Amino acid sequence: MISEKMMGLGKKSSVIREIFEYGKKRKAEIGEENVFDFSLGNPSVPAPKAVTEIMKEFLETVPAEVLHGYTSGPGDIGVRAEIAAYIKNKFGVEATPNLIYMTCGAAASLTISLNALVNSGDEVIVLAPFFPEYRVFAEQAGATLKVVPCKTEDLQIDFDALKRAITNKTKAIIVNSPNNPSGVIIPECDIIKLSEFLENKQKEFGTDIYLLADEPYRELVFTGEEVPYIPKYYDNTIVCYSYSKALSLPGERIGYIFVSPDLKDCGDVYAAVCGAGRALGYVCAPSLMQYTIAKCLTKTADVSIYEANRKVLYEALTEYGYTVIKPDGAFYMFVKSPVEDANEFCEIAKKYELLLVPSDDFGVEGFVRISYCVSPEQIKNSLPAFKKLIEEYK
Amino acid sequence: MISEKMMGLGKKSSVIREIFEYGKKRKAEIGEENVFDFSLGNPSVPAPKAVTEIMKEFLETVPAEVLHGYTSGPGDIGVRAEIAAYIKNKFGVEATPNLIYMTCGAAASLTISLNALVNSGDEVIVLAPFFPEYRVFAEQAGATLKVVPCKTEDLQIDFDALKRAITNKTKAIIVNSPNNPSGVIIPECDIIKLSEFLENKQKEFGTDIYLLADEPYRELVFTGEEVPYIPKYYDNTIVCYSYSKALSLPGERIGYIFVSPDLKDCGDVYAAVCGAGRALGYVCAPSLMQYTIAKCLTKTADVSIYEANRKVLYEALTEYGYTVIKPDGAFYMFVKSPVEDANEFCEIAKKYELLLVPSDDFGVEGFVRISYCVSPEQIKNSLPAFKKLIEEYK
Repeated sequence: MISEKMMGLGKKSSVIREIFEYGKKRKAEIGEENVFDFSLGNPSVPAPKAVTEIMKEFLETVPAEVLHGYTSGPGDIGVRAEIAAYIKNKFGVEATPNLIYMTCGAAASLTISLNALVNSGDEVIVLAPFFPEYRVFAEQAGATLKVVPCKTEDLQIDFDALKRAITNKTKAIIVNSPNNPSGVIIPECDIIKLSEFLENKQKEFGTDIYLLADEPYRELVFTGEEVPYIPKYYDNTIVCYSYSKALSLPGERIGYIFVSPDLKDCGDVYAAVCGAGRALGYVCAPSLMQYTIAKCLTKTADVSIYEANRKVLYEALTEYGYTVIKPDGAFYMFVKSPVEDANEFCEIAKKYELLLVPSDDFGVEGFVRISYCVSPEQIKNSLPAFKKLIEEYK
Repeated sequence: MISEKMMGLGKKSSVIREIFEYGKKRKAEIGEENVFDFSLGNPSVPAPKAVTEIMKEFLETVPAEVLHGYTSGPGDIGVRAEIAAYIKNKFGVEATPNLIYMTCGAAASLTISLNALVNSGDEVIVLAPFFPEYRVFAEQAGATLKVVPCKTEDLQIDFDALKRAITNKTKAIIVNSPNNPSGVIIPECDIIKLSEFLENKQKEFGTDIYLLADEPYRELVFTGEEVPYIPKYYDNTIVCYSYSKALSLPGERIGYIFVSPDLKDCGDVYAAVCGAGRALGYVCAPSLMQYTIAKCLTKTADVSIYEANRKVLYEALTEYGYTVIKPDGAFYMFVKSPVEDANEFCEIAKKYELLLVPSDDFGVEGFVRISYCVSPEQIKNSLPAFKKLIEEYK
């Protein structure tokens, strides 16, 4: 009688959440320091001090009815102007405030963009491994999700597989670089190749194919490489950004959608974004957070802890004999399961109090995800357990 | 190619917004103090000082990675426990944290609830006059909106009209008391009558009919009367609450959904609420605001300014010869247009720099809405204009 689909979504907790709950129980049993929980992608470093200071300053100096008042639906015009200037300055793309729409974080950026673009029967392509909620978001918007596996050796785009999957019903492709769950960054050469491929397919089909760039991990890069800014390469791009990771504000739900000025009929698409935000019940993004991030655009949370964790863990795991996909960014490491069934491997890992996430929910088999947004102590203390675990398979 | 429906929603700005934009232009031309803008329902009083103080205290004492970290999807369990205790204490209803779902304000409360309940082809009933976004929300959820006009003399429920409209496809009725745009409160006798009517219809049809109680204006009541708490009267009730008006925090987007413990299969409905929140991209409600409102549940913004405005305006307008629907609460007054076409009347009002909203968009004809959440000065200075306006029709 009620929506069975929504009830199902509400009742089925994710595998990640189940592992996390197991971890909480286990910590209560044997002590927090004895459980090595690598399940959640929850930033472990605090927001920059500047964020806290700006918020306090606003609370002390701005009249409450202004600070907490409605902004316009797409967001405060001043905030949007500052973000547009930042994008222009940083990436050289002609952003304007009337192409920026402030959102309640990356999930909202994606659901609003998908609802703006998708008509019933359209297809949305994701590249596996992918964040599992993409399926929920795309299907809610009325699309069919098509999963295109990446190349297993490096988890980069498999263009042959993409060629087989794309059709004249493909409305959008979601690209997530640095990637959750793999930490992989798509290099510029592949972004160029992808752009040319999509341009050709648009011509061939006489359709528009939108590239949704989901990039909350843009600032979390540890290889020195530059993450290509996709609007520079492909016209029909919509950037779905969030400050959750860059400023360690995941609970505050603040981000934006940026419709590329080169996108065909960008004004219409932006209008559809505004309409979708309205229909989904997003009146405006939280006002205090809008004003706050606008003053912190050049700031980033101290990601050096992630960088150190990554180094220690990567060096140890490879030394012990694990096969690790090169972890360029984000705070995830994707490790090959030494047995075919990653679920089985994760169960064995629990014997050593190691909580890892099997890759099946991310759309690929035979890997585990390690979220290394944890304390350096947890990394250090977990190493003997990782060592014993792999020795079971030698 | 993109969603025409969403593009249409994005391009068509509401009549209210158009009048507001006209007002901004006009103020620039002749001076702010000479334009009497009664178009927007934007709280004019600041949040209570306690709200600001609690936020500052949290920013100073709680580690940033906790304060701004993800809460669970339905909201922080401690926050939900405090709200449940408040509901139990205030209304005597057995609320529990696992029936409360924190939202980004009333619009999100409604879109999430509707998406949880509605299957394609269902009908949702609204009582006119009604907040125009109800149509957008219900249609996005896949429902057909059925408008049931209230009695024109007092804008209370017309049970004969409701009887004619209700069918075995009716999934929900939205009740908004105190009402936007009329300020009318549904008295207890009518809530009892409505409950009995719906109970009988449920039996007759063998269906569940949910009552969505949209009540952001619950604390804005100026007649001393008690707004009936609908879960006490009708089992299949879902309360859609927001702190936007009670705490003057409209830009912060914070509210909740409360599924009545007496609602049939309340656990399933709550799960569907969680699922719908997830599918629409609501990861969690803003964390700092969750913690803040939990410490301010007994606080209310100083609504005495609204009360004073209401008294001055109501007394003056009735004295001048306007017919005003008794304005019990919220910060709206609904006034009969002296000519059949309220749009025409609003155009004439502009001659006197009075910006009123014609009632057509609220689903009824022949009225105008006056939002009196303005400064007392604006009320006082506008009175001669109101007087001259009605004299045109004598």
